[in-house]
Amino acid sequence: MGKILIFGHKNPDTDSITSSLVLANLERKMGREVESCRLGKINKESEYVLRYVGMEAPRLLEDVEDGAEVMLVDHASNKESIDNLDNTKILKIIDHHKVALNTGYPLYYRAEPVGCTETILYKLYQENGVEIDKKIAILMLSAIISDTLLFKSPTCTPEDIKVAKELAKIAEIDCDTYGLEMLKAGTDLTGLSIPEILNLDAKEIDLKKVKSVIAQVNTASIADVMAIQADLETGMQKIMEEKQLDLFMLLITDIVNSDSQVIVLGKRADLVETSYGVKLENNTALLKGVVSRKKQVVPILTENV
Amino acid sequence: MGKILIFGHKNPDTDSITSSLVLANLERKMGREVESCRLGKINKESEYVLRYVGMEAPRLLEDVEDGAEVMLVDHASNKESIDNLDNTKILKIIDHHKVALNTGYPLYYRAEPVGCTETILYKLYQENGVEIDKKIAILMLSAIISDTLLFKSPTCTPEDIKVAKELAKIAEIDCDTYGLEMLKAGTDLTGLSIPEILNLDAKEIDLKKVKSVIAQVNTASIADVMAIQADLETGMQKIMEEKQLDLFMLLITDIVNSDSQVIVLGKRADLVETSYGVKLENNTALLKGVVSRKKQVVPILTENV
Repeated sequence: MGKILIFGHKNPDTDSITSSLVLANLERKMGREVESCRLGKINKESEYVLRYVGMEAPRLLEDVEDGAEVMLVDHASNKESIDNLDNTKILKIIDHHKVALNTGYPLYYRAEPVGCTETILYKLYQENGVEIDKKIAILMLSAIISDTLLFKSPTCTPEDIKVAKELAKIAEIDCDTYGLEMLKAGTDLTGLSIPEILNLDAKEIDLKKVKSVIAQVNTASIADVMAIQADLETGMQKIMEEKQLDLFMLLITDIVNSDSQVIVLGKRADLVETSYGVKLENNTALLKGVVSRKKQVVPILTENV
Repeated sequence: MGKILIFGHKNPDTDSITSSLVLANLERKMGREVESCRLGKINKESEYVLRYVGMEAPRLLEDVEDGAEVMLVDHASNKESIDNLDNTKILKIIDHHKVALNTGYPLYYRAEPVGCTETILYKLYQENGVEIDKKIAILMLSAIISDTLLFKSPTCTPEDIKVAKELAKIAEIDCDTYGLEMLKAGTDLTGLSIPEILNLDAKEIDLKKVKSVIAQVNTASIADVMAIQADLETGMQKIMEEKQLDLFMLLITDIVNSDSQVIVLGKRADLVETSYGVKLENNTALLKGVVSRKKQVVPILTENV
């Protein structure tokens, strides 16, 4: 049997990348042979974080052998995991999302409705009496800042903030300064193609029977992204045809002011209008105060289907 | 919104009954309004435990309102839960079984591959700094003894034993004496009809495509139960027809010697023969050392389908 493989979701964000490294570090301290992996390209925000701490990215995992032992972080769903997941042996899950999984066997499962996987991992370090060194603290803190948009997202809980404060002390970092730099690094779209931009943080979600993709792009300037609206719409249209979608919603989220401009296409675009009481003009509208897909988009749209 | 309802699986065993009481006690100490419930009749073992500590049984829950807030203990599967589960809001799961669930939202999920839910609940009391009083300790200890057959089942882990020892100190109980009395109380079949005996601890399980029921009856004397073999077979046959089963396996488990006599019916009865290298004679065989459905039956049969 090879090493136990630890990975986050497809299309990895900073939480998936760092959680894989942070859990791997913990497991090694507990004497297990593990390898930190990832299921996709590193985004620019995560690149910034890894460069900051001087660490290598987890290994890109294309597929796994039948029977491989794995641990999942930051997801608990077949759809968002490696294709072969049903033929692996899942030993452990650390997550903060919905449950969408069927295993035939018991396993270690630790999930909490907090803003970030790292907030849970922090507890596991404490419970096992394993010290968090400076690099690990920076990785963990980065993910909490990323997932909570510097504590401004409604997904952020008091626990995330408490843990972030502890980590900032170990990391010897000023959250606001570092956090804004890191988030801004993530908004850099230079060199990305339209399909890459649309796939930066895209989730395929069935809102009851409405086949949807809800994608999100962070920015420090909504106007800069809206300048390429026509190209984005062409790209969205193409994906809609390929995936036979009823709805494609792209959130362009202003990380400084915490609003989202949305571009919405598809025969169920009306859902966004009725859900937020807005009128789409030229396929777009501003949703004041909306930043979280998980808390402020998916449940609201689902309710209005 | 009413109280949060806490319940274990259908056809509840001692772990499901006590875990519902023990988690409810913890949640109340944390300031939540909860009610301990159950999804079926109390068995004689659990009756013995409740009488010993002088506590009322959890309330029998027939159905729940849409949108009710619930916490699951000792199961994480739609099939084994309340019929309306998909329309409830699951706040928390504490379990030691497989995952077979789809929620649309994040929740608190705590599972470990240990022998008993109470072993995990013990940790939650510790982590939250809530004292375990004598009655609660007896409830917890009873479930560990029940699920591990006095630590002799292969599902029993070193952690279950460690926790049981701590609990025995608080409970001021000798595990062996109390445990054997409790297990024996559970083997009392007086006054039970054949369908009730067959349903004492029955699970519907699809072994790949083989539709099966695997039921278990604990006893201090295999011969006493085998005396009613003909009646049991008639009852099994009836259930097989109703549920269109391919296999009905009844384990009659000797809790003193840790062996199981099995009665096997159905067109896939051959599975038991090939899995254990035994020959069924008059539909029955002795499986030496087999006591755990989860560890020593389901995976072995599945592998041999």
